[in-house]
Amino acid sequence: MKEKITSSQNKRVKQWRALTTKKGRKQAQTYLLEGWHLVQEAIQARHPLTAILGTADQLAAHADVLPADVDQFELTDSIAKTIGDANTPQGIFATVPITATAPVDPQTVQGGWLFLDQVQDPGNIGTMVRTADAAGLTGVVFGLGSASRYLPKVLRSMQGSQFHIQLVEADLHDWIQTFTARHLPVYGTNLDPQAQDYRNVDPVTTGAVVMGNEGNGMAPDLQRLTTRNLYIPIKGQAESLNVAVAAGIVMFRLFG
Amino acid sequence: MKEKITSSQNKRVKQWRALTTKKGRKQAQTYLLEGWHLVQEAIQARHPLTAILGTADQLAAHADVLPADVDQFELTDSIAKTIGDANTPQGIFATVPITATAPVDPQTVQGGWLFLDQVQDPGNIGTMVRTADAAGLTGVVFGLGSASRYLPKVLRSMQGSQFHIQLVEADLHDWIQTFTARHLPVYGTNLDPQAQDYRNVDPVTTGAVVMGNEGNGMAPDLQRLTTRNLYIPIKGQAESLNVAVAAGIVMFRLFG
Repeated sequence: MKEKITSSQNKRVKQWRALTTKKGRKQAQTYLLEGWHLVQEAIQARHPLTAILGTADQLAAHADVLPADVDQFELTDSIAKTIGDANTPQGIFATVPITATAPVDPQTVQGGWLFLDQVQDPGNIGTMVRTADAAGLTGVVFGLGSASRYLPKVLRSMQGSQFHIQLVEADLHDWIQTFTARHLPVYGTNLDPQAQDYRNVDPVTTGAVVMGNEGNGMAPDLQRLTTRNLYIPIKGQAESLNVAVAAGIVMFRLFG
Repeated sequence: MKEKITSSQNKRVKQWRALTTKKGRKQAQTYLLEGWHLVQEAIQARHPLTAILGTADQLAAHADVLPADVDQFELTDSIAKTIGDANTPQGIFATVPITATAPVDPQTVQGGWLFLDQVQDPGNIGTMVRTADAAGLTGVVFGLGSASRYLPKVLRSMQGSQFHIQLVEADLHDWIQTFTARHLPVYGTNLDPQAQDYRNVDPVTTGAVVMGNEGNGMAPDLQRLTTRNLYIPIKGQAESLNVAVAAGIVMFRLFG
C-alpha cells in the first residue's frame, strides 16, 4: 500500500511526531528510525517494520530495496521536516514495533557482553552499543535505571547496531551473579587506582564488562559482585575518561 | 570589583550572551566557560580570565577560591539562565580572552601528539582532547577545517583539558612532514583492512596519531605523508567506530 499525505493535520502525522516522546512511544508501542542508513540496516536485518515514510524523492531513490509488504507513506517535504528529532531533516523514516523479544537467558548465553549500570547520556549509550558490535560482542544488557534504547539520540548513535547484536533489559544483579556462578568473568570498571590495571587481564571469549554511570561510576553493590574491577591508568591531569571511550578501550582489550 | 546586574537589557549581558556565537566570540576575542568544573579548572591553571559571572549563591559558594584580581558580576537567577549554551543552567561562568599563544614549533616539541584532520563534531573533538590529556599526550593540533575549540559543546566535552595540554591550530601537512623529517613516527588511521593492525605497533614516546573526518576519514594526501596508517579490526557488523572511541583505543595503545 502506498498513500500520499499532504496535510500536516493528518492523524498519522501527529502520531509519527509523537514517537520522539516517551509517552508517544509507549502509547503506540512503536519507535521511529530516522534516515536512510538506519532504515536500510533494519531492512537488511529483516526486522519487522510497520511503515516506511518518506518524501517522493527518497522513496523513489530506494524503491528497489524497500520491502513490498510494508506500507509506504509519501510525505511532502514540509511534513517530512516536522517528523523526527534530527537537526538535519532526513526525508525517510520507518516505524518499528516495540515487540516483546524472546527472553534472553543469562544461564546459557555465550560470547562477550557489555552491562550498562545506570548510564544516562543517550549519545554515550548508543556509542557503546555500536562499539560493542564492532568489538564482536554478543549483546548489551541495559540495567535498571539506564536510559531507554528507543530515545532518538540513542538510536542515532547506535548506527543500526541494535540489528546486529542482542539488546536486553534486565537486573544486572541477576546477570552478574549468574555469570560468576557459571565461572565466567565479569569485569567491573571504576576509577580506583587500587583496582586491577586493565592491561593485565587476559582476553576472554565468554564474559562481561560493566560500565557505570557518568558521574557516579558503577554502583558499589554491583562492584562487590564482580569477578574483579578494572582501572584504566590516567597519565595526564584529566580526572576521568568519557564512559564510551573507556568502554571502547576495555572492550577492545578484552574481546577485540 | 564586584557589580550586581539586575537588568536583562544590560549591555554586558548582551555581550555575554553573544559569546555562544562565532561572531560574538570573534568580536570580543573572548569565550565563555560554563559551570563550576570548568571555571575551577581555569582558576587552578592560573589561566587569564576577564570576568567571573554568577548568581549570588554560586559566587558565595566559591568565594574563597575566586581570584581577587578578576572582576565579579553578580547575576539574578533569571539572567543567569539566559547566558551560556548548556541545557542545564550552571549559575557560574567565566569569560576568557582568546589570546595569541606563543607559537608551538613542531621542530622541537616532544611527547605524544594528536592531530585532528577536519573532525567536525564538537562532542567528538572535546572528548578527544580530554582523552589525549588522560593518555598523557603533550598536545593536540587542530588541522585546517576542524571545528573551533571555542564552541560551547567542545568546551563542555573537553572538561578543562585545554588547561592541561597544548592546543595548536596549524596545517597538518607541515606538522606531519616536520615529524617524519625528525624521524618521529606519525600514525594515520583509516578503515582499510590493508593498513597495519594497531595492535602490532610498539608504544612510542614522541610521535603523533592522526584522526580524520567522521564521514570521510583522513584526507588521502595526508595519509601519504604518514609513517604508517593503522587500522582497528572490526569483528562485528558495525561499519566503523565512533572517531573519539577509535582515538581512545589507539592513543591508549601507543601512549597510555
